[in-house]
Amino acid sequence: MIKVAVLGHGVVGSGVVEVIDTNQDYISKNIGEGIEVKRILDLRDFDVPYAEKFTKNYEDILNDEEISVVAEVMGGITPSFDFVKAALERGKSVVTSNKELVAAKGAELLKIAREHDVNFHFEASVGGGIPIIRPLHSCLAANQIQEIAGILNGTTNFILTKMIREQMPFDHALKLAQQLGYAERNPSADVDGHDACRKICILAALAFGKHVYPEYVYTEGITGITLEDVEYADNYGSVIKLIGRAKKLDENGSLTCTVSPAFLDKSSQLANINDVFNGILVRGNATGDVVFYGKGAGKLPTASAVVADIIDAAKEEKNNSALYWIDDGRNHVVNYLDIEEKYYVRVQLPEGASGKLLEEMFGGVTFLSRPHQPKGEFAFVIDRIKSRDLLEKEKQLESQGVSVLGKIRILNY
Amino acid sequence: MIKVAVLGHGVVGSGVVEVIDTNQDYISKNIGEGIEVKRILDLRDFDVPYAEKFTKNYEDILNDEEISVVAEVMGGITPSFDFVKAALERGKSVVTSNKELVAAKGAELLKIAREHDVNFHFEASVGGGIPIIRPLHSCLAANQIQEIAGILNGTTNFILTKMIREQMPFDHALKLAQQLGYAERNPSADVDGHDACRKICILAALAFGKHVYPEYVYTEGITGITLEDVEYADNYGSVIKLIGRAKKLDENGSLTCTVSPAFLDKSSQLANINDVFNGILVRGNATGDVVFYGKGAGKLPTASAVVADIIDAAKEEKNNSALYWIDDGRNHVVNYLDIEEKYYVRVQLPEGASGKLLEEMFGGVTFLSRPHQPKGEFAFVIDRIKSRDLLEKEKQLESQGVSVLGKIRILNY
Repeated sequence: MIKVAVLGHGVVGSGVVEVIDTNQDYISKNIGEGIEVKRILDLRDFDVPYAEKFTKNYEDILNDEEISVVAEVMGGITPSFDFVKAALERGKSVVTSNKELVAAKGAELLKIAREHDVNFHFEASVGGGIPIIRPLHSCLAANQIQEIAGILNGTTNFILTKMIREQMPFDHALKLAQQLGYAERNPSADVDGHDACRKICILAALAFGKHVYPEYVYTEGITGITLEDVEYADNYGSVIKLIGRAKKLDENGSLTCTVSPAFLDKSSQLANINDVFNGILVRGNATGDVVFYGKGAGKLPTASAVVADIIDAAKEEKNNSALYWIDDGRNHVVNYLDIEEKYYVRVQLPEGASGKLLEEMFGGVTFLSRPHQPKGEFAFVIDRIKSRDLLEKEKQLESQGVSVLGKIRILNY
Repeated sequence: MIKVAVLGHGVVGSGVVEVIDTNQDYISKNIGEGIEVKRILDLRDFDVPYAEKFTKNYEDILNDEEISVVAEVMGGITPSFDFVKAALERGKSVVTSNKELVAAKGAELLKIAREHDVNFHFEASVGGGIPIIRPLHSCLAANQIQEIAGILNGTTNFILTKMIREQMPFDHALKLAQQLGYAERNPSADVDGHDACRKICILAALAFGKHVYPEYVYTEGITGITLEDVEYADNYGSVIKLIGRAKKLDENGSLTCTVSPAFLDKSSQLANINDVFNGILVRGNATGDVVFYGKGAGKLPTASAVVADIIDAAKEEKNNSALYWIDDGRNHVVNYLDIEEKYYVRVQLPEGASGKLLEEMFGGVTFLSRPHQPKGEFAFVIDRIKSRDLLEKEKQLESQGVSVLGKIRILNY
């Protein structure tokens, strides 16, 4: 019997207990051994049938030599980091769903796990119940991964889907997401892109081998997206999605890594991922594009990924060195201002000005249209421009009385 | 250095050599050791830079103790089965892309591999470059898999995509597929569904633990699909796809397993998988639906899956018991005639007969329409009927002068 401790009895934590309970027979048959949740750490009291498993003192878990795997599902960095570190140092494997912890401290914890010949797994930290971490590293082992891009946040994808399909304004869609329990009362981590940022950092680190610091990743959320943008995207044969992406630029490890809204062609596999679903595209030099799709969050999907990690950690007798990246103390993410992109831009010209002004400034642009387009509103596509140069041109436009109402990258996935 | 032999130097075999060569540095860095193709078995002569590696005598490979992994990419059962068996018995791990071999002899070869404490891997046999075999068994370990459904054959998906998007008749689309090299000169294995059948048998065996014999799986191809059916599907908000599916029915191991064309709702994730791409949906009790998407065939995608298996086989020091199913000598697939399905049916009524005849016979049906629908042609949806009962009703209809022009299952993925 594999004995496990669960740190935290919130949504995911109680889900872990439930999945182990529901699938006990299936798991035993599958791996030849059962799993028992021996202790649960939580400061609150719970009126559940397994109340006797609870403790408020982490030492009870650390000192219990029967417990070989610790599942950290509390979230945050403090005290999670200290708890995880202590468990690894005591020779216990740790699995976690905590993307904030992995994005900030992944390299360090992987190193400690290796030094103590135990494992640190985090399948549930990206993509909820979608298997992505292990396929990325194991099944795609023979590929050079060139690029990863994904819809990594279900809340924002739900909001954008409502805006696209039902012409629901952002504020209404956010409110609905909150009512349905998809968004927090303070929705910033989702709608400002921070959650997606942590996830793309983890994927990029795994794919390219070096720690990627979230603070160097240009991160733009969806709060500035309007129904007008959605209409122009439609006119361009596209939909707007919040995309986290990482692309290898050279053999020295430089990479592009950003989180931002993007126009995606409607025929793109990522364009058809709607509602709270997530999708992750991996572009390899031999496989071409491979996409993984499923529920990116939710109690049971996330819990099942945690339990799968528990099973793997319990089965592996030594450190699994395949899942690894290092922190070499350097930032490898290039400044987003130096990246050339294809852009959609929407402006309001001053009275009397014509679209020629825009053509002159940007060279050949493609104009878009929408139903009931107001006079003076222009939307256009610039084929290729450095973000720095676009900012400069925006200033010039504004000095000529032009208001820049919106700009969105156009990506090719 | 991991020394490997490749059996067969056709499309996939030469791809394996190419992927190992191209990604040599990347692989070494990834797994801490290089891979060398030491011998290649083929009866033909090749004018390639590595001509000295070729042998026509399999004993040269069997007797070479340096060779720890054999990649079988010849296809067919004879002599592949004997070659694979002999290698396993000599303590060499084997990886294969040969779905025919795995569907027919998987349980037996897995057993031999276990007895000799080596591995038998076959990621490339299903879904080409899409990682599916290992995610299915490892990452979804904590889930009870309830159902698997997939677009498992790229050739037929290409043909159906042309029929749906460009109203190209089946014969033209098949010819185009042959011209582009997607279909063989004798296209039966693809268009009659046999290829998809082998793949769903492998997936079902892995998911549910018992060997699934292809000969018990009802298999219907796409040769009977017409542009009229495509139009009616569109009217129903659906597209027609060739779907292999397996569903667990009870705890005794009974399962539904069929290959057939199916109406899929346009919002289905599988409905948006087009051209030569494959997609596999796994429905788990905790994760919900997870979909894996990518190129299901092709030289480099398939070869990269073979190489990933080589890497895994080389890294595993003993038998990996997770990838396993048994042949208990029994058929667990229920007779398709006893399955209740939702059906689309298209008929031609004799002159003077009215649609009431159909309503009376089937109870409440939903009629569909298409542009320029000829007089007397009726298409309708039956909500739920056993395939056996539908056949019976077809006979009754025909005795009344009604021609049954087509019928297609309506599936819910």
